[in-house]
Amino acid sequence: MANDKEVAHGASSKKPNPNPKNAKKKEVKKETGLGLSNKKDENFGDWYSEVVVNAEMIEYYDISGCYILRPWAISIWETMQVFFDAEIKKMKIKNCYFPLFVSPGVLQKEKDHIEGFAPEVAWVTKSGDSDLDVHIAIRPTSETVMYPYYSKWIRGHRDLPLRLNQWCNVVRWEFSNPTPFIRSREFLWQEGHTAFATQQEADKEVLEILELYRRIYEEFLAVPVIKGKKSEMEKFAGGLYTTSVEAFIPNVGRGVQGATSHCLGQNFAKMFEINYENEKGEKAMVWQNSWAYSTRTIGVMVMVHGDDKGLVLPPKVASLQVIVIPVPYKDVDMQAIYQACSSTVNALEEAGFRVEADIRDNYSPGWKYSHWEMKGVPLRIEIGPKDLANKQVRVVRRDNGAKKDISMDGLVDGVKNLLSEIQESMLNAAIQKRDACIEKVTTWDEFVIALNKKKLILAPWCDEEDVEKDVKARTKGETGAAKTLCTPFDQPDLPEGTLCFASGKPAKKWTYWGRSY
Amino acid sequence: MANDKEVAHGASSKKPNPNPKNAKKKEVKKETGLGLSNKKDENFGDWYSEVVVNAEMIEYYDISGCYILRPWAISIWETMQVFFDAEIKKMKIKNCYFPLFVSPGVLQKEKDHIEGFAPEVAWVTKSGDSDLDVHIAIRPTSETVMYPYYSKWIRGHRDLPLRLNQWCNVVRWEFSNPTPFIRSREFLWQEGHTAFATQQEADKEVLEILELYRRIYEEFLAVPVIKGKKSEMEKFAGGLYTTSVEAFIPNVGRGVQGATSHCLGQNFAKMFEINYENEKGEKAMVWQNSWAYSTRTIGVMVMVHGDDKGLVLPPKVASLQVIVIPVPYKDVDMQAIYQACSSTVNALEEAGFRVEADIRDNYSPGWKYSHWEMKGVPLRIEIGPKDLANKQVRVVRRDNGAKKDISMDGLVDGVKNLLSEIQESMLNAAIQKRDACIEKVTTWDEFVIALNKKKLILAPWCDEEDVEKDVKARTKGETGAAKTLCTPFDQPDLPEGTLCFASGKPAKKWTYWGRSY
Repeated sequence: MANDKEVAHGASSKKPNPNPKNAKKKEVKKETGLGLSNKKDENFGDWYSEVVVNAEMIEYYDISGCYILRPWAISIWETMQVFFDAEIKKMKIKNCYFPLFVSPGVLQKEKDHIEGFAPEVAWVTKSGDSDLDVHIAIRPTSETVMYPYYSKWIRGHRDLPLRLNQWCNVVRWEFSNPTPFIRSREFLWQEGHTAFATQQEADKEVLEILELYRRIYEEFLAVPVIKGKKSEMEKFAGGLYTTSVEAFIPNVGRGVQGATSHCLGQNFAKMFEINYENEKGEKAMVWQNSWAYSTRTIGVMVMVHGDDKGLVLPPKVASLQVIVIPVPYKDVDMQAIYQACSSTVNALEEAGFRVEADIRDNYSPGWKYSHWEMKGVPLRIEIGPKDLANKQVRVVRRDNGAKKDISMDGLVDGVKNLLSEIQESMLNAAIQKRDACIEKVTTWDEFVIALNKKKLILAPWCDEEDVEKDVKARTKGETGAAKTLCTPFDQPDLPEGTLCFASGKPAKKWTYWGRSY
Repeated sequence: MANDKEVAHGASSKKPNPNPKNAKKKEVKKETGLGLSNKKDENFGDWYSEVVVNAEMIEYYDISGCYILRPWAISIWETMQVFFDAEIKKMKIKNCYFPLFVSPGVLQKEKDHIEGFAPEVAWVTKSGDSDLDVHIAIRPTSETVMYPYYSKWIRGHRDLPLRLNQWCNVVRWEFSNPTPFIRSREFLWQEGHTAFATQQEADKEVLEILELYRRIYEEFLAVPVIKGKKSEMEKFAGGLYTTSVEAFIPNVGRGVQGATSHCLGQNFAKMFEINYENEKGEKAMVWQNSWAYSTRTIGVMVMVHGDDKGLVLPPKVASLQVIVIPVPYKDVDMQAIYQACSSTVNALEEAGFRVEADIRDNYSPGWKYSHWEMKGVPLRIEIGPKDLANKQVRVVRRDNGAKKDISMDGLVDGVKNLLSEIQESMLNAAIQKRDACIEKVTTWDEFVIALNKKKLILAPWCDEEDVEKDVKARTKGETGAAKTLCTPFDQPDLPEGTLCFASGKPAKKWTYWGRSY
């Protein structure tokens, strides 16, 4: 079961050690073999695997489709978690934890829902050497785990709204193309499950949560996303409607569903008998939502920003924002340089930045530059004898390679400004690249050409399921069929008489189409 | 599979709703049926189940041994997590996430270890309708999940120490006496796994972590614990030695292992070939630790502090520290009272306390008192017309029922002092109760008498495994055999010539014995 995609890379497994010992005995490593062996434009899939492994985010695991999330990845997850958790707590949503296991009777209660998930469900059938009387499923998502208890807890209108969230792992035993972060058999996510007296309240929350998801992508990960509604075919199994934020990976011309906020309507409420006595003393049924984002977010970020030198991290989520590297020269007072490095780290740390110095004596500055570029650290500070003499430091941006000298007096402000510039310009650059891929088409021929050019296609559509199925069938090929990504909330004008690009029937809306992850 | 211990309690499922609507239509509920039907001293097990359910910490789940952790419990978990996570990050320990699944080959690599866990391992054998070629285990703990990768990542002395932690769920499919928090088939925990160049460093960390566990129990949960070392029989399967913090539940006379910090020595390193090149260029083997605390902590807190009115929460972990309750009288200006409640909440909230007002108009003050006592809120503030006239509030402590008037001017300071008094006196009261149960014995006869009196027994012991086995066999009975709990680090004098209480051989140490969870 060992995954043959695993990329060995001795150098990247070295941990920085701030205490240089036995300095004289060591040979300084200067090899520049640190670069990636795959290029983003040439071999995207292998490039991606190589980046996530060499940047020490992921280690391939001996069970296919499962991955080890290393500290360099988990710290990003935690930063998003702190933000999202605080925001939903402001909305009076409370955290809870429901079991990993589901009994089959409950799992199968909602037919459409289980149809959507059944092939991917992992089953526990044994404990120790004993067979279990009843097989037990591992949650692929927790609607059916939770809702029997919502039915129990909700009695009267005063019990509403009931708004719970949990941070947990879920398992979907998929067999197609496991990809770190993007498609894995186990992943981490939050799942919110809420119940309201009215559809109006549910609708409102769907969009409030979607906005938080947009902020995670755009404000934290610097990844532009499109807010919209999924088609009937693509919506959550058993729900009423699904909204999503959709990202796009220009290099492969694929959309990727970033996170989803579903209105479940009253369908689960009916199946699980989630009723309450309303203010008039009548029996009524709740309206429900569920919403989730997962560690997939991290993969999207890597795909959008990474380059041929490795990972590029937006400063807001980088567990290390600034790396300070001493640049030794022959016959130079190294002690003074190390001191300058150390005072630089202290000053920036005090100002609240995440910063470290790499003062290992067995690696050359060039090796260190490559190493920290591979890991995507947003800002590098170099300090050599000339900088010391001029009371300045040399700063180098990871995102665009721009270099600049900052006087030591203006260090904190200079770094502060640069980091927020980087954050902003990473988003802007990603928007530009994404927008350059958007193509508006109105006919089938234009659609096919755009699809072959790996575009994110905006097309007028009749909104009929058969037509979407037909488009899927007609575009089936090696690289996967095209499907709807979302109908954007931000709709261009749709002049009277516009026809569906695929069916020739009257178009009802502009919808994004493309291949997707 | 439904658990018949489930305690229905309609009233406790009502959520506070701060907006009283249709005030005049509602009948005010005055029933006092809120109390527990079991008493802590009379029927401890049923009392415990009733408390955790009625306080809305736990809901029994339709799979036996699995429990739903409701917000009232999860908020306590999160408070401890924030503390512990920050402390270990100061120690340069980093968070990561390894998969839930283990392949059988790896799981079985360390023989003693797997012997300890094998009977409890849950196995996934199917996905969808397909049988898996290789059965896959769900982690009961992650030593064997992680260490193959430690072997890969650790090459040279600069890669050490490697210190990782993860927050996750684990599964142990036990069949004996499932008890919420204390013994459940799935539970939440953190598990730290570290590797060092020297035993000295490993030994040091074992105790540093154990001290954090002590602080969680004593400073947060107000539960006294004894630090010590486990016997060879009771240590972690496959490890070198195990240290623990041990709590005691006076009502049932049982010890409960609070959390464990293990030194694994080099045993796993040998099995998983975790070697490195030391500074002299020689091949060396790492020293490892693993350590964990779990949601069991919450159960111990409930057992120690709860009383016949329900849960009693230490202020530091209570998700609600103060509940403000208006006390209406006939022909009184209720508007002014509600305003006083609201300004009290605002003042306390601004000062950083977790506080709410219960202004529901369909429950009487008496009902509300019982309700919030059941849920264990540390401090109740009552505001009635007399309080208003005297510019004061009435405060009532949950832990001892003491009442006191505080002037509205001195509100914030008064509450601050009271909450820290409560935190302190809950720990002191628990220490007194625990200490009253400690009995020093030196002979077998004294031991048996003390055991029957449900004591926590401190006895001189020869430290031989056969003797511990013999004590277990001789005390086997309905309520479970006695075993060693720990050898406390804090050792009383052991005069030359003292004999083992059980074998009559020379005693080597004082050790705590008793029944345990």
